[in-house]
Amino acid sequence: MSEKKVAVIMGSDSDLPVVTPAIKRLKALEIPFEAHVMSAHRTPEEAAEFSKNAPENGFGVIICAAGKAAHLAGVLAAHTTLPVIGIPVKSSTLDGLDALLATVQMPSGIPVATVAIDGADNAAILAAQMLALSDQGLQEKLSAMKREMREGVAKKDQALQEKLKEIE
Amino acid sequence: MSEKKVAVIMGSDSDLPVVTPAIKRLKALEIPFEAHVMSAHRTPEEAAEFSKNAPENGFGVIICAAGKAAHLAGVLAAHTTLPVIGIPVKSSTLDGLDALLATVQMPSGIPVATVAIDGADNAAILAAQMLALSDQGLQEKLSAMKREMREGVAKKDQALQEKLKEIE
Amino acid sequence: MSEKKVAVIMGSDSDLPVVTPAIKRLKALEIPFEAHVMSAHRTPEEAAEFSKNAPENGFGVIICAAGKAAHLAGVLAAHTTLPVIGIPVKSSTLDGLDALLATVQMPSGIPVATVAIDGADNAAILAAQMLALSDQGLQEKLSAMKREMREGVAKKDQALQEKLKEIE
Amino acid sequence: MSEKKVAVIMGSDSDLPVVTPAIKRLKALEIPFEAHVMSAHRTPEEAAEFSKNAPENGFGVIICAAGKAAHLAGVLAAHTTLPVIGIPVKSSTLDGLDALLATVQMPSGIPVATVAIDGADNAAILAAQMLALSDQGLQEKLSAMKREMREGVAKKDQALQEKLKEIE
Amino acid sequence: MSEKKVAVIMGSDSDLPVVTPAIKRLKALEIPFEAHVMSAHRTPEEAAEFSKNAPENGFGVIICAAGKAAHLAGVLAAHTTLPVIGIPVKSSTLDGLDALLATVQMPSGIPVATVAIDGADNAAILAAQMLALSDQGLQEKLSAMKREMREGVAKKDQALQEKLKEIE
Amino acid sequence: MSEKKVAVIMGSDSDLPVVTPAIKRLKALEIPFEAHVMSAHRTPEEAAEFSKNAPENGFGVIICAAGKAAHLAGVLAAHTTLPVIGIPVKSSTLDGLDALLATVQMPSGIPVATVAIDGADNAAILAAQMLALSDQGLQEKLSAMKREMREGVAKKDQALQEKLKEIE
Amino acid sequence: MSEKKVAVIMGSDSDLPVVTPAIKRLKALEIPFEAHVMSAHRTPEEAAEFSKNAPENGFGVIICAAGKAAHLAGVLAAHTTLPVIGIPVKSSTLDGLDALLATVQMPSGIPVATVAIDGADNAAILAAQMLALSDQGLQEKLSAMKREMREGVAKKDQALQEKLKEIE
Amino acid sequence: MSEKKVAVIMGSDSDLPVVTPAIKRLKALEIPFEAHVMSAHRTPEEAAEFSKNAPENGFGVIICAAGKAAHLAGVLAAHTTLPVIGIPVKSSTLDGLDALLATVQMPSGIPVATVAIDGADNAAILAAQMLALSDQGLQEKLSAMKREMREGVAKKDQALQEKLKEIE
Repeated sequence: MSEKKVAVIMGSDSDLPVVTPAIKRLKALEIPFEAHVMSAHRTPEEAAEFSKNAPENGFGVIICAAGKAAHLAGVLAAHTTLPVIGIPVKSSTLDGLDALLATVQMPSGIPVATVAIDGADNAAILAAQMLALSDQGLQEKLSAMKREMREGVAKKDQALQEKLKEIE
Repeated sequence: MSEKKVAVIMGSDSDLPVVTPAIKRLKALEIPFEAHVMSAHRTPEEAAEFSKNAPENGFGVIICAAGKAAHLAGVLAAHTTLPVIGIPVKSSTLDGLDALLATVQMPSGIPVATVAIDGADNAAILAAQMLALSDQGLQEKLSAMKREMREGVAKKDQALQEKLKEIE
Repeated sequence: MSEKKVAVIMGSDSDLPVVTPAIKRLKALEIPFEAHVMSAHRTPEEAAEFSKNAPENGFGVIICAAGKAAHLAGVLAAHTTLPVIGIPVKSSTLDGLDALLATVQMPSGIPVATVAIDGADNAAILAAQMLALSDQGLQEKLSAMKREMREGVAKKDQALQEKLKEIE
Repeated sequence: MSEKKVAVIMGSDSDLPVVTPAIKRLKALEIPFEAHVMSAHRTPEEAAEFSKNAPENGFGVIICAAGKAAHLAGVLAAHTTLPVIGIPVKSSTLDGLDALLATVQMPSGIPVATVAIDGADNAAILAAQMLALSDQGLQEKLSAMKREMREGVAKKDQALQEKLKEIE
Repeated sequence: MSEKKVAVIMGSDSDLPVVTPAIKRLKALEIPFEAHVMSAHRTPEEAAEFSKNAPENGFGVIICAAGKAAHLAGVLAAHTTLPVIGIPVKSSTLDGLDALLATVQMPSGIPVATVAIDGADNAAILAAQMLALSDQGLQEKLSAMKREMREGVAKKDQALQEKLKEIE
Repeated sequence: MSEKKVAVIMGSDSDLPVVTPAIKRLKALEIPFEAHVMSAHRTPEEAAEFSKNAPENGFGVIICAAGKAAHLAGVLAAHTTLPVIGIPVKSSTLDGLDALLATVQMPSGIPVATVAIDGADNAAILAAQMLALSDQGLQEKLSAMKREMREGVAKKDQALQEKLKEIE
Repeated sequence: MSEKKVAVIMGSDSDLPVVTPAIKRLKALEIPFEAHVMSAHRTPEEAAEFSKNAPENGFGVIICAAGKAAHLAGVLAAHTTLPVIGIPVKSSTLDGLDALLATVQMPSGIPVATVAIDGADNAAILAAQMLALSDQGLQEKLSAMKREMREGVAKKDQALQEKLKEIE
Repeated sequence: MSEKKVAVIMGSDSDLPVVTPAIKRLKALEIPFEAHVMSAHRTPEEAAEFSKNAPENGFGVIICAAGKAAHLAGVLAAHTTLPVIGIPVKSSTLDGLDALLATVQMPSGIPVATVAIDGADNAAILAAQMLALSDQGLQEKLSAMKREMREGVAKKDQALQEKLKEIE
């Protein structure tokens, strides 16, 4: 089984704090990745080249984070048949609605798998779920992660019982 | 390589016209699939069971279509680590915005790969892109589909030149 | 008359500050309650079990608080015929609109009694109103609360007259 | 146990088609009810009187349907401690968003249990759930209704299998 | 010519900072006024009484400020034929859109003259414009105010020329 | 007491059907009026002239109806201290939200008394309420209109009782 | 003075009815143009090539019409320093809001001159205004067009006076 | 070739921080400009005069920044056939949506070239692109600017590689 990389592309280096949870999750799941700043509008040719060559460069999934009129995911998706995941990034106006609509409302033929506004962690998990379709080890890591989440809720419920006593 | 099926789940049988393009696309790409009516709210246990057993029943990807407070994709995603694709369905009020937000704004840990409102064709293509990560034949079909789309645009551009002459 | 409990379920322990007014109100009205962290997506089985067993465990009303794609109230409502009250919680994007729509736009057959975004106090009062249908003592407490609110407005109006003098 | 009535109040007689599913559901569940046209703005005194006298006139729950700046549910709730259920009605502009926000965003102290835009059926079911807290027979009817819904989905899933064959 | 008062009604004393510009403007225009806290939902009878008696108590115009499901202006308008001006107040969620729609989307027959979200200054000016229809002195004050605004812009334009030099 | 006219200005002759209820109401209340097509953008000078000369031409109130980026009411208000009432008109996109915001969100100093989207009837009633401040006869007509509305609701309630019998 | 052409690019041939007013206006103003179907997502390379070569092919302005996640104008703008005008096209969901935000909310450095949803006529006029900066003849045509618009309003106002008589 | 000036008009001097990037960009591109405070509502005559005389005063493009019910760009466009660029300014409510719709949704005949909310830099670049249609030197500056943007992204991508190492 060949191990495929995930590409994490952000439209601006100012998006790094939003994207960081995706990078942490990929590291935690031991999925190889590259991260790059690339712009649909400022470096359209580099973006097109990256996307076209992604399969032969070992990538299996492309994650894109962009704000405002977020065209990046769509532009990369135009040049590849790899699955492209879009993270709409909230910017200073309209609370992320612009980026959400510009990412998710893709025309027929060119899907972008959109996650929540600023939902970078889920973008990484979704990429892992895709790769796990042919990677049993990764599949097991995802199952373990799911169990831990479940146990985490149980612990929080216990902690809540203490906090409730303080409410008067 | 074992061939995985796609599950196409709709919250109501009235969603079938919206879902039909996904079914046509899956047939065109010769991807095996099953389609079912299942409700997060009316048949929650059946939905949970279906999702939990999906891997051992041969499914690789789950597509869900639901409208209004569209919980179906999220509920199925809660019970599996397979990738789940959500199609928000426009209903009689709010123009699909409710279904879009209820599908895409998933909390950290449980992604739903959301496509456009009523974007069933893209849901099927996205499922195919995921499966094609380990299926070279499907990958080639997707590339061919992309070429055809491109040629289709060129033909439409030619036809447009005729139509322009009629505008006065 | 058997005294029924109210369940206050929150999707994440980070929702506690939003939920606290509900807990205070239930305490003030001397209504027995339990509060728990439970997730429609991270602990779907626990949530389903809790809801199914709620009547025999002495609960009469279930209050749910959740943000973003807020499925918790709907998922609990799927497993019970007890009235379920949903509090949409404002999160970091979209100002609570996502949680509001994901809570209120339930399909026919499975209602969620939705209150205002972050409207926890009203969720508790609404639960009390439901229980008071067969609890005369609670009914009287609610009437007293209403009188106090009315008197509180009169006092604020008096205080306003002083503050007005300071405006120039 | 005294049997309480449900009041179904609509802001305009033009709301009757939207409200009809509530009336059908109440009839099906054999819950006694009265329906009236009453306006928060055109007949404010009648509305206030109705609400104040509702308990002694045998009502247990009030359902209100109104569109645009839908004040009716809030105005009735101001005069009673009975639970008030609001149905936001879609009108010719803004797709029901105005009625939804005017119904659900009630200030602290005066809840309105809001259901989906045009969600009259759920308003009736919610009223039934409230009354069933002290009415075992009604509780059983609601459980039966839930089972039927579940079986209805199973039947629709079977019918779907036939329809799928027609899609090419 | 009898001099009529303006009533400035706010739904909560927490609205005073938003309402203050209206009070300042009324003082500057030497228009007699009273300000009160009154709630459509907590003190519905007092609100109705106030509105019904407003003409005989010497009021000519009623200004109402309220947030969220802002029913106050509509409820007062229901009980009088005096012009009622509504100020939608921004609260902690939805950025004032809820209050705007709940104030402006009044049904046929009961208008509320709505100004901008948090637009208290304009509410006072609008009240003055109404009263000035039969008050030549007030009319002249409004004309003077308009000239001053115009001159104020000219001064700001001059000041801008200095500030521009600092931009590099 | 001099009788003042109402000006009814529409941005386009296609707005006439929306404006018609205002004209009917003014006729019913026997208020003198003129109606004109005038555009903030196509005939800005005519609009400015009209507004500046409105008082000396006998107008007391100006009603404006416009859609999309509805500047007409604001532009007329810029040139007069007469009260200006704005009717946001729904056009083919955005369901009237654009016209509503462009009409109501006026900056400090220049109010526009905004009514509901397509709310022409209320614009006329509001104009009448303003003029009635110094016109006792008109005041009585408005009171009579309010009584008729109230009686109309009572009649509709009676008629409803018959219709209810037909619902099964 | 070299006469530059306008390019009218549409994302799909189904956009032709929306785009037609632009074509008619360009013809009326005798501005040379070409119209093409081209897709940011289906023919990204053709779109990039077209845009890069636009200046040397004699184009001065590019008009783009696209719906949903409307990336076309932004993608063309990425490859040229010619002014690019975007027409957001209303599609079957969200009433054009998605296309508007995806077109107008461009990041710093790559402007798209956005006109109203479905505002094709204005796109052509705006293109003409740009070209008229160095084309006195075109400038005069635009001035004549403006005069005609003004006269058209005056005629409509006259016609309105007749129609008013029919309203009772 | 005569060198034309750009006018930068803001509705209030409080808009200067938003407008500053436009001024910096015009200075960087060595485009002559004037900046003024002018209000569609407070100084409508000055605004009309400025716009009418703009061509003979040497202006080629007018940039307008305004918030809320942003009429300024439309009002200036009404009086000229020069291209007018609108910058919708975010104010304290509605996150800029009101200004965006009031600026972009112009009726047929009077376009406003709208850029992103608070998108002043792009307004200046768009003005430069228009002027560059007949100014080869400016055209080259714009091309250089585009190259620098592209190189800037490449540098940020390099810097990102360092920052990635710090994420654990």
